[in-house]
Amino acid sequence: MMLTETGSDSFVAELRAQSRRYHDQHTFSRRMNEGRLSPAQIQGWVANRFAYQASIPRKDAAILANCPDREVRRRWIRRIHDHDGTADGEGGIEAGGIEAWLRLGEAVGLTREEVEDERHVVPGVRFAVDAYVTFARSRPWVEAVASSLTELFAPDLMADRLAAFERHYPWIDPHGLAYFRARLTQAPRDSEHALQVVTERCRTPDQRAAAVAALTFKCDVLWSMLDAIDRAYPDR
Amino acid sequence: MMLTETGSDSFVAELRAQSRRYHDQHTFSRRMNEGRLSPAQIQGWVANRFAYQASIPRKDAAILANCPDREVRRRWIRRIHDHDGTADGEGGIEAGGIEAWLRLGEAVGLTREEVEDERHVVPGVRFAVDAYVTFARSRPWVEAVASSLTELFAPDLMADRLAAFERHYPWIDPHGLAYFRARLTQAPRDSEHALQVVTERCRTPDQRAAAVAALTFKCDVLWSMLDAIDRAYPDR
Repeated sequence: MMLTETGSDSFVAELRAQSRRYHDQHTFSRRMNEGRLSPAQIQGWVANRFAYQASIPRKDAAILANCPDREVRRRWIRRIHDHDGTADGEGGIEAGGIEAWLRLGEAVGLTREEVEDERHVVPGVRFAVDAYVTFARSRPWVEAVASSLTELFAPDLMADRLAAFERHYPWIDPHGLAYFRARLTQAPRDSEHALQVVTERCRTPDQRAAAVAALTFKCDVLWSMLDAIDRAYPDR
Repeated sequence: MMLTETGSDSFVAELRAQSRRYHDQHTFSRRMNEGRLSPAQIQGWVANRFAYQASIPRKDAAILANCPDREVRRRWIRRIHDHDGTADGEGGIEAGGIEAWLRLGEAVGLTREEVEDERHVVPGVRFAVDAYVTFARSRPWVEAVASSLTELFAPDLMADRLAAFERHYPWIDPHGLAYFRARLTQAPRDSEHALQVVTERCRTPDQRAAAVAALTFKCDVLWSMLDAIDRAYPDR
């Protein structure tokens, strides 16, 4: 079989195996999905995670800026639209993921202003987010694509989180959860494209090792954010 | 009057005055529009200018990557679509400016392959194009926006060029000129937005001087390309 002969199967398996480093395993994620977080902890997470959400279009634009392949760019640009959206004021997902996250902020009791100005964002989160954008700017674009493959693991976490929020945190208006619902369909579409790009273009052991390392790095970014958030908003 | 009080009028006038450095004044441009270039010179220009066309989406993505303003990004991203397009194979402008330029190449007697692989691109053109992309990556994003303001001057040149091509170079299939026709409407829309961004955000003398310098730099990029092309394809 073609894939086996070129080692592509084991490469994909190694990428998927990085799920063991995914932040769904972090204590803060686990406690969130078990319904054990206080409103203040949920608010702290939403406010801090906004720094990540707001930076995603710039990360994806950095990949576009480094990518010489027009066909890849034509598909990748969709991600920027998904997050930046096309119009404010509408309730729909076409307003974009950043807008949806601001509405999540309102649903958990934060003002748009205090989320948007990132006053609650702690240094550890800021550094992790900046590291991710810098990675996309400065590393070869295929590695930056590989770093996005945490989206392979995202849908399971999104589904669990949606169920957990509706069950354990009834004080949060379910309309505020639109971001997670949108990612249930966007993330599989995006990760399929990214996986195709990475498997087509990473053929040598060195290229494949670099792709796995990029995905490990991205898992570290997400994990490190939760470390910082967990420290900033401890159980009382 | 508000604009005069803040000096915005004279700032805009100074930006517009950079038209004296625009490449429509270059001898190669003048001879092109006077119908004095040979088919080999036209081909050389089209093949070399492709390097510029192909780099535009990466330049604009670099600006997106550096721009923290979601409203600006939502409008700026349109430029990437204009050049990258959405589908190959169609004859329409929705296939994008790069595709339209490849068709111009075919209309002047070049193969898609020899244009796309940039085998004819001379070092001076390569360096100028790379300098432009590097500028957009590394300078403050408002300066990169200011550097795009050569589009203030483009429509006049496009209109003259369209007329000149139809009059002086009847051997070129007019269908190949779709790129220039598209720019007649795209460039004014784009330069209006860029001018708005620059006038809103450049308020101090230093900021305004930097914006003018950015536009001068961009004029130098275009001029330097024609210097290199003129040298590579001299009159016989």
